[in-house]
Amino acid sequence: MQWIDLRSDTVTQPTPAMRTAMMNAVVGDDVYGDDSTVNELELLAASILGFEAALFVPSGTFGNQLALFTHCERGDEVILGEDSHIVWHEVGGAAVIAGVNLRPVPTQNGVLDAGQVRRRIRPEGDIHLPRTRLICMENAHSSGRVVPLAAMQEIWETAKSAGLKVHLDGARVFNAATHLGVDVKQITQYTDSVMCCLSKGLAAPIGSILAGDAAFIATARKKRKLLGGGWRQAGVLAAPAMLALTEMTLRLGEDHQNAQYLAGQLASLPDVHVCTDQLQINMVFFEIRKEIDEGKLLAHLSECGIKSNGTEDGQWRFVCHWQIGKEEIDTVISAMKAALAAA
Amino acid sequence: MQWIDLRSDTVTQPTPAMRTAMMNAVVGDDVYGDDSTVNELELLAASILGFEAALFVPSGTFGNQLALFTHCERGDEVILGEDSHIVWHEVGGAAVIAGVNLRPVPTQNGVLDAGQVRRRIRPEGDIHLPRTRLICMENAHSSGRVVPLAAMQEIWETAKSAGLKVHLDGARVFNAATHLGVDVKQITQYTDSVMCCLSKGLAAPIGSILAGDAAFIATARKKRKLLGGGWRQAGVLAAPAMLALTEMTLRLGEDHQNAQYLAGQLASLPDVHVCTDQLQINMVFFEIRKEIDEGKLLAHLSECGIKSNGTEDGQWRFVCHWQIGKEEIDTVISAMKAALAAA
Amino acid sequence: MQWIDLRSDTVTQPTPAMRTAMMNAVVGDDVYGDDSTVNELELLAASILGFEAALFVPSGTFGNQLALFTHCERGDEVILGEDSHIVWHEVGGAAVIAGVNLRPVPTQNGVLDAGQVRRRIRPEGDIHLPRTRLICMENAHSSGRVVPLAAMQEIWETAKSAGLKVHLDGARVFNAATHLGVDVKQITQYTDSVMCCLSKGLAAPIGSILAGDAAFIATARKKRKLLGGGWRQAGVLAAPAMLALTEMTLRLGEDHQNAQYLAGQLASLPDVHVCTDQLQINMVFFEIRKEIDEGKLLAHLSECGIKSNGTEDGQWRFVCHWQIGKEEIDTVISAMKAALAAA
Amino acid sequence: MQWIDLRSDTVTQPTPAMRTAMMNAVVGDDVYGDDSTVNELELLAASILGFEAALFVPSGTFGNQLALFTHCERGDEVILGEDSHIVWHEVGGAAVIAGVNLRPVPTQNGVLDAGQVRRRIRPEGDIHLPRTRLICMENAHSSGRVVPLAAMQEIWETAKSAGLKVHLDGARVFNAATHLGVDVKQITQYTDSVMCCLSKGLAAPIGSILAGDAAFIATARKKRKLLGGGWRQAGVLAAPAMLALTEMTLRLGEDHQNAQYLAGQLASLPDVHVCTDQLQINMVFFEIRKEIDEGKLLAHLSECGIKSNGTEDGQWRFVCHWQIGKEEIDTVISAMKAALAAA
Repeated sequence: MQWIDLRSDTVTQPTPAMRTAMMNAVVGDDVYGDDSTVNELELLAASILGFEAALFVPSGTFGNQLALFTHCERGDEVILGEDSHIVWHEVGGAAVIAGVNLRPVPTQNGVLDAGQVRRRIRPEGDIHLPRTRLICMENAHSSGRVVPLAAMQEIWETAKSAGLKVHLDGARVFNAATHLGVDVKQITQYTDSVMCCLSKGLAAPIGSILAGDAAFIATARKKRKLLGGGWRQAGVLAAPAMLALTEMTLRLGEDHQNAQYLAGQLASLPDVHVCTDQLQINMVFFEIRKEIDEGKLLAHLSECGIKSNGTEDGQWRFVCHWQIGKEEIDTVISAMKAALAAA
Repeated sequence: MQWIDLRSDTVTQPTPAMRTAMMNAVVGDDVYGDDSTVNELELLAASILGFEAALFVPSGTFGNQLALFTHCERGDEVILGEDSHIVWHEVGGAAVIAGVNLRPVPTQNGVLDAGQVRRRIRPEGDIHLPRTRLICMENAHSSGRVVPLAAMQEIWETAKSAGLKVHLDGARVFNAATHLGVDVKQITQYTDSVMCCLSKGLAAPIGSILAGDAAFIATARKKRKLLGGGWRQAGVLAAPAMLALTEMTLRLGEDHQNAQYLAGQLASLPDVHVCTDQLQINMVFFEIRKEIDEGKLLAHLSECGIKSNGTEDGQWRFVCHWQIGKEEIDTVISAMKAALAAA
Repeated sequence: MQWIDLRSDTVTQPTPAMRTAMMNAVVGDDVYGDDSTVNELELLAASILGFEAALFVPSGTFGNQLALFTHCERGDEVILGEDSHIVWHEVGGAAVIAGVNLRPVPTQNGVLDAGQVRRRIRPEGDIHLPRTRLICMENAHSSGRVVPLAAMQEIWETAKSAGLKVHLDGARVFNAATHLGVDVKQITQYTDSVMCCLSKGLAAPIGSILAGDAAFIATARKKRKLLGGGWRQAGVLAAPAMLALTEMTLRLGEDHQNAQYLAGQLASLPDVHVCTDQLQINMVFFEIRKEIDEGKLLAHLSECGIKSNGTEDGQWRFVCHWQIGKEEIDTVISAMKAALAAA
Repeated sequence: MQWIDLRSDTVTQPTPAMRTAMMNAVVGDDVYGDDSTVNELELLAASILGFEAALFVPSGTFGNQLALFTHCERGDEVILGEDSHIVWHEVGGAAVIAGVNLRPVPTQNGVLDAGQVRRRIRPEGDIHLPRTRLICMENAHSSGRVVPLAAMQEIWETAKSAGLKVHLDGARVFNAATHLGVDVKQITQYTDSVMCCLSKGLAAPIGSILAGDAAFIATARKKRKLLGGGWRQAGVLAAPAMLALTEMTLRLGEDHQNAQYLAGQLASLPDVHVCTDQLQINMVFFEIRKEIDEGKLLAHLSECGIKSNGTEDGQWRFVCHWQIGKEEIDTVISAMKAALAAA
C-alpha cells in the first residue's frame, strides 16, 4: 500500500528520475575532491542561491549547526526567533557543537522585530558581555508563513550596521521564493549564508546545501570533516540533489495550490477552523473546535491509509508535497469527515 | 580622599573587624581540606541557608556557572528570566563552561511566569528535543525588586512536577530576606541550590557561597578544582566572610532605609523621576526627564568626590551600602542639585 | 579512462549490484524510523557484529566520534594508541564533540601494551584527577597490521577490571577477521562498541556502522540527531550497504592476496624495500632507498593512469581493493619500473 | 601544635609580614580596575617576569588553563610533556575550558625532546588535521628537576620556526631560576606566556600570576571574568603576593640547601635510597628499599607531629619550605629512624 503521508514534506520519496540519476551517477572520493557530480552540484547550488561557494551536507540540522560553528567563536551570542527551528528542534546542538549562546527574541509570526534585535546586540568594551556575532532568520518559517523581503532587509541592515553576520535557515527557501514570486536570490541577498534542504518538498532522499562566500565555505568544509560529515562517493546523492534543485523547485507552486485546495475543503468540515494566516506555503494548519479523541481520529485516518502527526499546541498540520495530489486530498477529506463524525 | 561610591555594592571595602579577622585567621591548605576557617564558614553558610553543605567560591559568577555545570549535563536546557544576571552579565559563560543552552523567558519585573516556563519544558521521548534540566530564579533581582515567596513557590512546584532542579542566583538573597522580613530559609526552601555573595552589601573583600545537598556540593567541589577555583590558605578570606554572614546580614535593613531616604531626596529634585516600583532593596533607580549632558553630570559628581555609573537603558542607579550613610546621601543630593542645574 | 587508484580503499566505487540496489531500494523517513531498508541493515549489522543493536552513520569519523560522545561524559579521559586514527586523522574532534581528553600511549605496531594502559588509568577519589572512562583499540590498524586476539583480550580484561568501556575503531575490522581467519565476532567480543566502515574495502558509496548494546545505541541515535546525522530516505544508502556486509566481506581475502602479489612484485624492483611486517591486509607499505624526485615519480604514474599519494614519514603505501586485480597490478609494476629508472 | 608539614610547599602559611600587609592593604573593586594594590602587583610581576603585562588569578591551575584558553581556539592541539602537571593533575580541564586536544610526548626527566615535538606538529592544508597551536613546558618540573636553558631555547626555536606559541607552567619558576643561578627572565625569554605561583614556596596564601604581552593579557582578563575569576577587593591578596615576589623569591636558596641537608640525612638511614637526579630544588624524592607498612610509617610520623603524603609510583617526596628549617629536619630524621625500625 502507498500511504498518503501528511506528516511532513520530509517524508517525500525520491522521484523515478532521481532513482535513475543515482543509478547512473559518476562518482569519486569526495574527501579527495574527486566526485565530479558533487562538485557540479555545489557549483550549481552556489550559482542558484547567489553565493560564491556551496557545500553538500547530510541534513538541514547539520547545515544550520555548521553555519553557527563556522560564523562564530565559542561563547559568542546568536540572536534569533524564539520560535525558530534552531531553538526548538535541533536537540540543543548550539551549545554543544558551536558552543554558542542563543539569544531568542519573540517574533511576530516568525518575523524578527528589528527593535527587539537591537536591544540584544552587545556593545563593545564591557568585560561582562559576550560578543554578539550572528543573527539567524528562518524563511519560509516552520509556522507556514513567509517573511517579507522588507522585513529581511531591515534585519540585514541592522546586522550590517552592527558588524554582524546573517544566516538564513532556508530549509524551505524555495517555498518562500515561490510564495513571494521572486527569484530565490532576492531573498538570499539579505544573508551571509543560507542552508537549504534538498529533501523536504524538493524530494531528494538525503542532503542539504550550505552556501556562503568562498572563505566561509572553505572553513565549513574542514569543520564538516571534523563533525564526521565528509562523505566518500557522494555523487550517488548529489545526482538526485541536482534534480531537486533544477526541476523540483519549479513545481512547488503546485504544492502551494494543493494546500489552498486542501484548506478550502477542510474549512468546509464542521468544527474545523483553518489558520488562514499560516497558509502561505505547502502546509495547512487547523484546529478542531470540539472535544474529540485525538488517538481515535489518528487511528481512523490510519485505517484509511493516511498518516498524520497529532496536534502541537492544539494545532493540526497537514503538509502537501509531490506525492499528495488532488485525488489524495479528496481521500483525506472523506476520511476526515467520517473520522470527525466518529471521534 | 574617601570616595562616595554609588556605582554598586560590589565596591564595599572590608570593615575594620574584617581586616582584623584576616590578620588573625587560622589557615591551612584548603585543597587538602585542612583550612579550619574555611570548613567552619562552609558549615555555617550551609546551616544559615538551610542546606546540607556549602562551598566557598571566588565570585558570584563562579558560583552561578558552577551551579549550571554541576546540575546539568552538556547540551541540557536551562529556563530563566530574559533579564537575569546569568543571561546579561556573565560573559556568555553558560555555553562555554557548562555547555548548556539558556532558554530565556520574559519576566514580570524579574518574576518568572509559571505559564511561560511550562511552555518551554521539553516533553520526553522526542529525538528532536534537548532535555530541560534546570530553572534559575534571581532574588533579589538586579532591577532592585524582590520576588515574592508565592511566586517562588509556584515556580518550585512547576519544576518539581516536571522533575527539574531549581537554582537561585541569590547574590543579594539576604537583601531579599530583609525586604520580605523573613528568615532566608523561607526563600531558599524553594530551591535545590543557591549562590549568595559575601562581597556586595555584606562587604567581604572576596568570595561567594554555593549551597546545596551533600552530593551536589561534593560534585561541585571537584568541578571547582577543574575550573581553577581550588584555593590554598583560603582562611584569610573565610574569616571576613564569616563576619559578612553573621554580622553584616543583620544591618542590611539600614541600607534599605538609606535607599528610601535617598529616593525621597532625589524625588524632590526638579526633573528627577524615581522608579518607585524598583525601590525594594538598597538600590535607587531614577530617570532625569530633561535633556542633560550625562558626561558633564558625571564629571561634576566626580569633582564632589562621588562615583556613579552612567545610565543603562535610560535609567540611573545609585546603590547604598555600609559606607553610604545619611551624611553621604546629603552630600550626594547637594551635588546632584548643583549638577542638574549646570548639566 | 578508468584510473588505477592506489591511494586508499576509500576510493572504491559502488559495484553494479550496489547501483541496482540503490535504484530499487524501499525507503521511508528514517528520522521517523520508517525506512525499512535502514532498519533491516541495522538489524543485520548488529547480528553480524555480535551486538544487540546498530546504527547507520555518515562516515567512520562520525562513528568513532559518536562512540566517544556516547560512552563518555565531558572531561573524561580516553586511553588509546598514539598512532591511532582518532589521534591523527579526525581533525581533533575529540575535544570538540565529546569534549574528552585523549591519553595517547605508545604502541607496539598498533598494539596497545596493557602495562602502559594501566599506568594511565586514574584511581578514584583524588580531586585532582579526571575520570578514565574508555579505552579505544584499532583493528586492523591503519599501519597495515592486525592486532592479535590475545592482545585484544588482555586490554579487554584490563578495562573490565577497572570498570572501563572499550571501543573498537574497526574501520577495517573485516580485513582483520579475514587475516586472522576468524568470524568477526571473535574480535568484537572484546569490545563494548565497534565502528566499521561499509565504504573502504567493502565498496559501499557512503556509510559506516556503530554497534553496541541497546541502551548505548538508543543514546547514540539521539546524539546522531544532535550532530546532524539524522538522515531521511537513507534506504538508498542502506541497500548497497547490505551488499557490502553480506557479499563484499566474503571477497576481502582476494584483496589480501593481491596485496601479497603486489608486494612480491615491488620487492623485485631495484631499491624498493617492502615493509613486510606491515603486510597483513590489503595495504603494501614500502620505501624507495635511493634519492628520487617524488613529484616526478607521481607524475609518471599519473601519465600511466595510476593515482598514488606521496610518502608519509618516508613510506609509500599502495592499497588494493575490488577495482585492483592482477592485471592492474602488472600495469602498476611496469609503470613503477620505468618511473624508478627515470626519477 | 605546629605541624611539620612535608606534603608540599602548597601548605605554606603566610608569613607575619604578609598578614600585616593584608591587614593594611589599600583596596578597590578590581572588576572596575580600581584596586591599586592589584594594579601594582600586576605591573611588578610583569616587570620581574619580563613581559608587557600580567594578571592575578586564583590558582596555578586557573592560570595554566586560562593560558590554554587564551592562546588557542577550540579544537587546536597543544604539545606538552606526558608527565606534566597539565596532563596529570588539572582534572582534565583542557578539553572542558579551552576545548583543546593535548598531545603528550614522552620526556627525558621532564625535558621535552625537540625531535619528538617536531614529529607532532601538524602540517597545514590537510583537511584531516587539527591545527597545532601551542607548546607547553614546565620549569621547575614537578619531578624536582630543572630544565636547562639550552633545552628551553631549542623548544622555543622549534616553536617559532613553526609559528607556534610557547607557554611555561612556571608554578616554581623562581625555584628553577635559583637552581640555575640566573635571573628569571633568562628562563622566560623562551616563552610567550608564563604562569607562576605565589603560594607554594613563596608562601602567599592565595594566587598566581599569568604574564604575557599586552594583547594576550587583555584577552585573558576577559576570559578570567567568564571563568568567574574576577575578584572584587583583591588587594587583600595582592599585598602578601607582593611580598612573595619581592622578598620570598630571595630566600628560596635556603629551601634548596635544606633539601640537600635533608637528603643527606635521609641517605644515611638504612634502606633509604635518595633519588639524587631529582634533587635540584626544594624537594627530596626517595625510596625505601625494604618491605614496610606504609600506613604504619605515616601514623608514626603523625604521632611525631609530621605530615607526609604516601608514596606515588613507589617514591616518597618530602618538600622543604620556609616553615621547615634545620631543626624541623632533625626532628624528621629522628622520627624516620624510629619509624623505619618499627614499620
